[in-house]
Amino acid sequence: MEQEQDAGTEMAPSERARIRQHADRARYGMDEVFAVLDEGVVAHVALVRDGTPVVVPMAFGRVEDRLYLHGGVASRLLQALGQGAEASVAVTILDGLVLGRSAIKHSMNYRSVVVHGRGREVTDPDEIVAGLRAVTSHNLPGRWDALRPATRRELSATRVVALQLAESAVKVRSGGPLDYPEDLDEPTWAGVIPLRLTAGEPVPASPAAAVAVAEPILQPGLTAPERFS
Amino acid sequence: MEQEQDAGTEMAPSERARIRQHADRARYGMDEVFAVLDEGVVAHVALVRDGTPVVVPMAFGRVEDRLYLHGGVASRLLQALGQGAEASVAVTILDGLVLGRSAIKHSMNYRSVVVHGRGREVTDPDEIVAGLRAVTSHNLPGRWDALRPATRRELSATRVVALQLAESAVKVRSGGPLDYPEDLDEPTWAGVIPLRLTAGEPVPASPAAAVAVAEPILQPGLTAPERFS
Repeated sequence: MEQEQDAGTEMAPSERARIRQHADRARYGMDEVFAVLDEGVVAHVALVRDGTPVVVPMAFGRVEDRLYLHGGVASRLLQALGQGAEASVAVTILDGLVLGRSAIKHSMNYRSVVVHGRGREVTDPDEIVAGLRAVTSHNLPGRWDALRPATRRELSATRVVALQLAESAVKVRSGGPLDYPEDLDEPTWAGVIPLRLTAGEPVPASPAAAVAVAEPILQPGLTAPERFS
Repeated sequence: MEQEQDAGTEMAPSERARIRQHADRARYGMDEVFAVLDEGVVAHVALVRDGTPVVVPMAFGRVEDRLYLHGGVASRLLQALGQGAEASVAVTILDGLVLGRSAIKHSMNYRSVVVHGRGREVTDPDEIVAGLRAVTSHNLPGRWDALRPATRRELSATRVVALQLAESAVKVRSGGPLDYPEDLDEPTWAGVIPLRLTAGEPVPASPAAAVAVAEPILQPGLTAPERFS
């Protein structure tokens, strides 16, 4: 809605990946795609079912230029993705509320990735483990390797689906409101309220673990109490 | 993926709104739909374009049993929704990372709403203002009424779309990991790391407002520094 400044136009990897609204906020470099994905915590996965759209929040992980999703073998969404259904996946990081001096100059600061592509069921045993490691360790670096290995029964109850990140675009808005000059004297607070997903004090499971163990490490995108760092 | 306890089964408003995965986490009461929407900050809006799914993060607002979206008149997504396209809208609040004693018992605590329905373009001038007020004040109670009125030109550059919340479902996971009894002695930290979207110190726009004005109020779902409360 706002008229924001143009930061230059980059080349989109495909027509449908091209960002039209606020094209000046678009980035298509893979490093930027990876950075947003690695800091995001949840993905919103959309596909078409019976001709209508369905969107669901899911955990995810990344290995190189592949995004991994997982779930129970009974999940219809993962079944469809495993059979090659088209998906659109958004990962969004909220950075702030932008308050202008007029309603139309309100916005949010954010970094988001939208990926388009067909799912692929992972069947290679090594890639299944790599995908599950990526999802389990996504917000908790090293977590997968700190756990007992998954059993054959657990693996056979789980479906892992990969999505290539080839058709991806990043959209970024940052900075303060871009008010109309004639509004600068409006009697209202204007600026940015930063937002951040913050980790609180860990709550141990009951019954507590039988042995003294180190608390997990959090991914850098999550701020946390001292004891984590 | 986890085998969670059953909290009873409620009646879904429609077949496609019915939650199949972890049906025990489903809630269909309108009060619960409203509560999650009102605390959520961003919506992920999915629709079908040229036969493939597209998902986009958007600001939103709520008035009674209607969800409002807005944007520039050139937005293709809002054009399609205004013409009655089917949409699926997810609003997700992350409450924590759940760390079990095995990979399969990792999860997230969250509250999410998924809405299905057809968009409707808002053309009544009073409802346009009500919809824009809902979006602008969603995270900032009273914000719309603290601003100068939108001009005729601003209103004519803006499209407002409504979605009925009739086909909505809430999904909630809370509490600690539900480990297998045979894993309780695994030498790993297990429990919940709470997550919360937190507001930081407000950053005034430059140039600062010409008059001293009160800072805005935040919606209760956002924790914030003392000076907000």
